[in-house]
Amino acid sequence: MRAVCLLSGGLDSAVTAAIAKYQGYEVYALTFNYGQRHKREVESAKEIARWLGAVHKIFDIDLNQFGGSALTDKINVPEGKTIDEIRDSDEIPVTYVPARNTIFLSIALAYAEVIDADAIFIGAHAIDYSGYPDCRPDYFDAFQRMANLATKQGVENRKIDIKTPLIELEKADIIRKGNDLKVPFEHTWSCYKGGDIPCGVCDSCVIRINGFKEAGLEDPLEYENGIQSQ
Amino acid sequence: MRAVCLLSGGLDSAVTAAIAKYQGYEVYALTFNYGQRHKREVESAKEIARWLGAVHKIFDIDLNQFGGSALTDKINVPEGKTIDEIRDSDEIPVTYVPARNTIFLSIALAYAEVIDADAIFIGAHAIDYSGYPDCRPDYFDAFQRMANLATKQGVENRKIDIKTPLIELEKADIIRKGNDLKVPFEHTWSCYKGGDIPCGVCDSCVIRINGFKEAGLEDPLEYENGIQSQ
Repeated sequence: MRAVCLLSGGLDSAVTAAIAKYQGYEVYALTFNYGQRHKREVESAKEIARWLGAVHKIFDIDLNQFGGSALTDKINVPEGKTIDEIRDSDEIPVTYVPARNTIFLSIALAYAEVIDADAIFIGAHAIDYSGYPDCRPDYFDAFQRMANLATKQGVENRKIDIKTPLIELEKADIIRKGNDLKVPFEHTWSCYKGGDIPCGVCDSCVIRINGFKEAGLEDPLEYENGIQSQ
Repeated sequence: MRAVCLLSGGLDSAVTAAIAKYQGYEVYALTFNYGQRHKREVESAKEIARWLGAVHKIFDIDLNQFGGSALTDKINVPEGKTIDEIRDSDEIPVTYVPARNTIFLSIALAYAEVIDADAIFIGAHAIDYSGYPDCRPDYFDAFQRMANLATKQGVENRKIDIKTPLIELEKADIIRKGNDLKVPFEHTWSCYKGGDIPCGVCDSCVIRINGFKEAGLEDPLEYENGIQSQ
């Protein structure tokens, strides 16, 4: 059994790939170098892939060719929100990259088709990222149905399963699961900004710090200004 | 009304974009520089976009990063088949690029999201390309359902329509329609190979030559070895 695992270098995708490995899949990790301001995460992905013993493909695609997001464009990454403000917001955050999951999953589908993989794993979850249209369970169901028709495997009535093992989990649960699987959290990168050490105040850092707090575990990362998860 | 029109430089996508324009859409042409051996078609796309008076975006994405197709890899492009052999084949041709339409449509979706387009036009048709999984009507229906959930527009209950005006047409009908809309066929490029003049013997040339013949129209292109459509 082979699985293409989307591996961003962040915590969620590292836990997801560890789950795939734990389930017995041969892991083909796929990382996107997409013009993100936090390129630092690609280095983290390399570390995680090495820890997994996975084949690792780094795919270059410059999503900056369209712009439209704070992660690729010259739009400021918001900071200073509380975890409740992030969770309760109905708005699509400016860090949303248009159709990013669709593009990444489509490229993963091509990779899965070429290596004849059985599954694609993606570490999306709907709880903390409720504002992102392409993190909702309905979206992944629809992608699955499309994928069933899109490929050679589909024509042969075989399926490439789109797996979202974290979809209903909260960050604290993800961290607990990663802890059980001995994921090296020190090599994961969550911060949206491009600095050398994580800022501690962007949405992604706030969600991570709060997650470790709720899980009762220690985040091995050090944050700017001495912000800590405990 | 705005439409993102996938414009390969080939005949089908040129006719499709002309239909979008005729229907009153402001055309945003999108061409992929994807590592195809027939890069020549990107130059054709530029000519067609100019003729359309369209905004033209050329998006770089190297699909050669995975391989798996005669169009991007070192696999020979088949030649010398008759139109009936091409039409009657049940096999997926080696010129099929894994998940290519899915990747292209996903990127078009991102572009449509950023420019707030109402539709995406793609010149796929199911008749001559029956062996390609991602040219079937069911596939496009499934992509539409996925796209309705994937985007900002989807969250706001607006739709980005996936339009396939050629889906049920034969090549001869497409050529007749293009002729009615005065599409400059001399600027379109169909040959799968990378030569200076079209080979006349790859599947794509054979389908084109036969299409002009059936339509009773003259193909303005000259082919290698004096092969002609009339």
